[in-house]
Amino acid sequence: MAKNPADPPRSSPLDPADWSAFRREARALLDQSIDRLEHAGDGPVWQPMPDRVQASLAIPSPVEPTPVERLRHELVESILPYATGNTHPRFWGWVHGTGTAGGMLAEMASAAINANCGGRNHGAIELERIVVGWACSWFGLPASAGGLLVSGSSMANLYGIAIARHHKAGHDIRAKGNAGVPLVAYASKEGHLSVSKAFELIGLGREALRTIPTDAGLRMDLTALKTAIAADRSAGRKPFCVIASAGTVNSGVFDDLAGLADLCAAEGLWLHVDGAFGAMVALAPELAPLVAGIERADSITFDYHKWLHVPYDAGCILVRDQALQIDVFGGRPDYLAASGGLASGEPWPSDLGIELSRSFRALKVWWTLREQGTRRLGEAIARNCAQARLLESLLRCHDIIEIAAPVSLNIVCCRYRPPGLDDAALDDLNARIVVAIQESGVAVPSTCRIAGRLCIRVCITNHRSRDDDFALLIDAILSAGKRAFSQITAA
Amino acid sequence: MAKNPADPPRSSPLDPADWSAFRREARALLDQSIDRLEHAGDGPVWQPMPDRVQASLAIPSPVEPTPVERLRHELVESILPYATGNTHPRFWGWVHGTGTAGGMLAEMASAAINANCGGRNHGAIELERIVVGWACSWFGLPASAGGLLVSGSSMANLYGIAIARHHKAGHDIRAKGNAGVPLVAYASKEGHLSVSKAFELIGLGREALRTIPTDAGLRMDLTALKTAIAADRSAGRKPFCVIASAGTVNSGVFDDLAGLADLCAAEGLWLHVDGAFGAMVALAPELAPLVAGIERADSITFDYHKWLHVPYDAGCILVRDQALQIDVFGGRPDYLAASGGLASGEPWPSDLGIELSRSFRALKVWWTLREQGTRRLGEAIARNCAQARLLESLLRCHDIIEIAAPVSLNIVCCRYRPPGLDDAALDDLNARIVVAIQESGVAVPSTCRIAGRLCIRVCITNHRSRDDDFALLIDAILSAGKRAFSQITAA
Repeated sequence: MAKNPADPPRSSPLDPADWSAFRREARALLDQSIDRLEHAGDGPVWQPMPDRVQASLAIPSPVEPTPVERLRHELVESILPYATGNTHPRFWGWVHGTGTAGGMLAEMASAAINANCGGRNHGAIELERIVVGWACSWFGLPASAGGLLVSGSSMANLYGIAIARHHKAGHDIRAKGNAGVPLVAYASKEGHLSVSKAFELIGLGREALRTIPTDAGLRMDLTALKTAIAADRSAGRKPFCVIASAGTVNSGVFDDLAGLADLCAAEGLWLHVDGAFGAMVALAPELAPLVAGIERADSITFDYHKWLHVPYDAGCILVRDQALQIDVFGGRPDYLAASGGLASGEPWPSDLGIELSRSFRALKVWWTLREQGTRRLGEAIARNCAQARLLESLLRCHDIIEIAAPVSLNIVCCRYRPPGLDDAALDDLNARIVVAIQESGVAVPSTCRIAGRLCIRVCITNHRSRDDDFALLIDAILSAGKRAFSQITAA
Repeated sequence: MAKNPADPPRSSPLDPADWSAFRREARALLDQSIDRLEHAGDGPVWQPMPDRVQASLAIPSPVEPTPVERLRHELVESILPYATGNTHPRFWGWVHGTGTAGGMLAEMASAAINANCGGRNHGAIELERIVVGWACSWFGLPASAGGLLVSGSSMANLYGIAIARHHKAGHDIRAKGNAGVPLVAYASKEGHLSVSKAFELIGLGREALRTIPTDAGLRMDLTALKTAIAADRSAGRKPFCVIASAGTVNSGVFDDLAGLADLCAAEGLWLHVDGAFGAMVALAPELAPLVAGIERADSITFDYHKWLHVPYDAGCILVRDQALQIDVFGGRPDYLAASGGLASGEPWPSDLGIELSRSFRALKVWWTLREQGTRRLGEAIARNCAQARLLESLLRCHDIIEIAAPVSLNIVCCRYRPPGLDDAALDDLNARIVVAIQESGVAVPSTCRIAGRLCIRVCITNHRSRDDDFALLIDAILSAGKRAFSQITAA
């Protein structure tokens, strides 16, 4: 009954019945996918999915098979056109990466391999160790450092804070839980939402995260931080961690990492740096001084899918001493025990986090870094910052537009401000302008509030934007502003 | 200065300089990826990455670009051959899905779209709502139900337990944390590691998760559970949740979901069902009675990347009342506020979990379910269970092999047992057999312990396995057993 294991043909009811026909469909979809990226600037940046398209997709759970050709048509006609728009040269809403054509090839191959990167001894795990090592080198972390690829900065912040808690709590958190120890930590008021959500999830509660005021440059105020730590200690609470921002989401500000490293060393606190997109300035020599001191962090969060343009999702948590990460997450039951063979290769990624199922993110990270190289990626980052300065200077030519915050990196916040309207009316006006520009398909800015006032926010993490794209944006602001002003004053 | 937005050509330094050349490379890689799947049964199931290959990959962080052609060759020669092996017909180690060729197309298109599915109003979010709705219908959940795609069951269990905690704690967990309330929950001793890791992370500690003994059929003992709840209550603790298994990882056993639903209703506890792979029997009519009662669960965990063969990673948490999930995770800061346009569309997926960056998993789920249909997927599940029964009967023809646990689903645990060896020696012998078979490349079983004894574990979640593949496995066990026995007795 034993046969040569290589004997063709094999077939599974879930594999294509006709591989040649499948290949033709696959090539057609590949061509259409590349067309989309080659012509990324054509058509609207964003358009809502029409009700009729939505209705056509919202069928009951399918019982019977559908031919691949028909699925490809549905995908190309009903899904591809209704994307967020972040592959388009004039997408500047929020901090979204642009993706690359090469990244798409890596994802295709990744699905063909179909690796589960929770553990075991295979090439995907090896590649993850290599790319994590590259990241450690960018930030000057020591040989003890390690880390894990995660979905993004939200997960990375969760892990950094959980590791800090474990090492500063003074008892066995894994067995006993928080156990009533009044642990507290600190972030500036410009810190990211994901940090307070992490405190909610790990059972300390968001009140355990103290909000520290910022100085005039929107950086965490170190004097206020010191005062808060002292107050907590004298009230019997237990400070354990400071969460610094390397590139705040509202305005791209960097906390004083070197000053915070000194303070954390003196106070015996864990320094976690949330560098979601900003930490990537380490790859642009003229911007790298912004993250001076990051080499002293205990843990660092950053994303590959933002300013390095790896396809979504791909983030990373780095830990100065990987052994501490294993203390928090390591250990496996019998059925996962290593006895050589495929089950060997310590530590498994599942010893560094909570996920036992993990996609092969390392391949697209590896491919993007190899294809582009860090020099070119760093240049694209620096170019985005130069474009923010250009946009600022272009906007300053228009008296009706106010620059709402200093442009320190890649984010421009401005406000269309015709005379005769109060702040509430201006908030309404600027919100209408942003929606009108998005709906026009010309560009995608977003909104934010600076000192309580609603602003138009242009966040440039886009390798496809050209200088003249920003002129189009200004035209759009001016004309949408004029129309919205008429609507408001007519009402 | 304003130009027609559709004006070609555009170029970015990170886009291909020559799109035609890029297309040729992309087609070549597509062909090689399809080759890999069309001939999934050729060659060894698994082989370790040789040191020279590892050394060739372990270069310092790359500064300069590398041509796509060279990267493709490196990928095909140094990475593709050293996979886990779960696309191969004789991979039966752990609970890994096999993937499909169609799933690869979806991943390719997904990277071309490059959607961040944390939120906003675009087609990817709409598609996620549709596929989550399909899953709700499989389990008979009411119209109030909803959920979220996640990386896998580890994350889904974390979310289910966190939502249960929030709703049963009796105070504001998000603001105040666990706050010393002695919350306790229950799972059987066959429960999954990810459940206790969730308790560690959420700050309750693994001791807050009570381990309930199992009955003779390895199901959670309901009488013991009731006793434990009563004991905790009388000791002043606060029971909040029961975590049931629908398909335990060791032997594929289903807890009595209907009985647990009654008990949870009577006790006022949350019923979370961990159905990582087992819940998918709902799609196979002859097996569906195993999950009777699941329609009464408060939350359900399952994976698409296991028995539905969607490419890694793709899991799901379903919640009976989606409003409760939003209570735990909802709320967004100013810069994400919805004011119409692209920022609209409530709720955002980030209101249902902690991730603000999320890949477009819904596309590969949608594609796989549309391409295959649930009938064919259910048949593949039933076939795997029939293959487990076949393997059991084939193994029973060999006196030297003992069946170590009842075969109730798709998992066969056996032990090679020549006379004259004690239990410790048999443990060593069976571990050697598994490693030897893995290293031979003929098949990949794994190990587990049943009643403390190390066994050969064959877990069949593979749509490419044919009946004669199991005959090859038995040959491999017998010959590896004979060799390992000689080694041990000679030592």
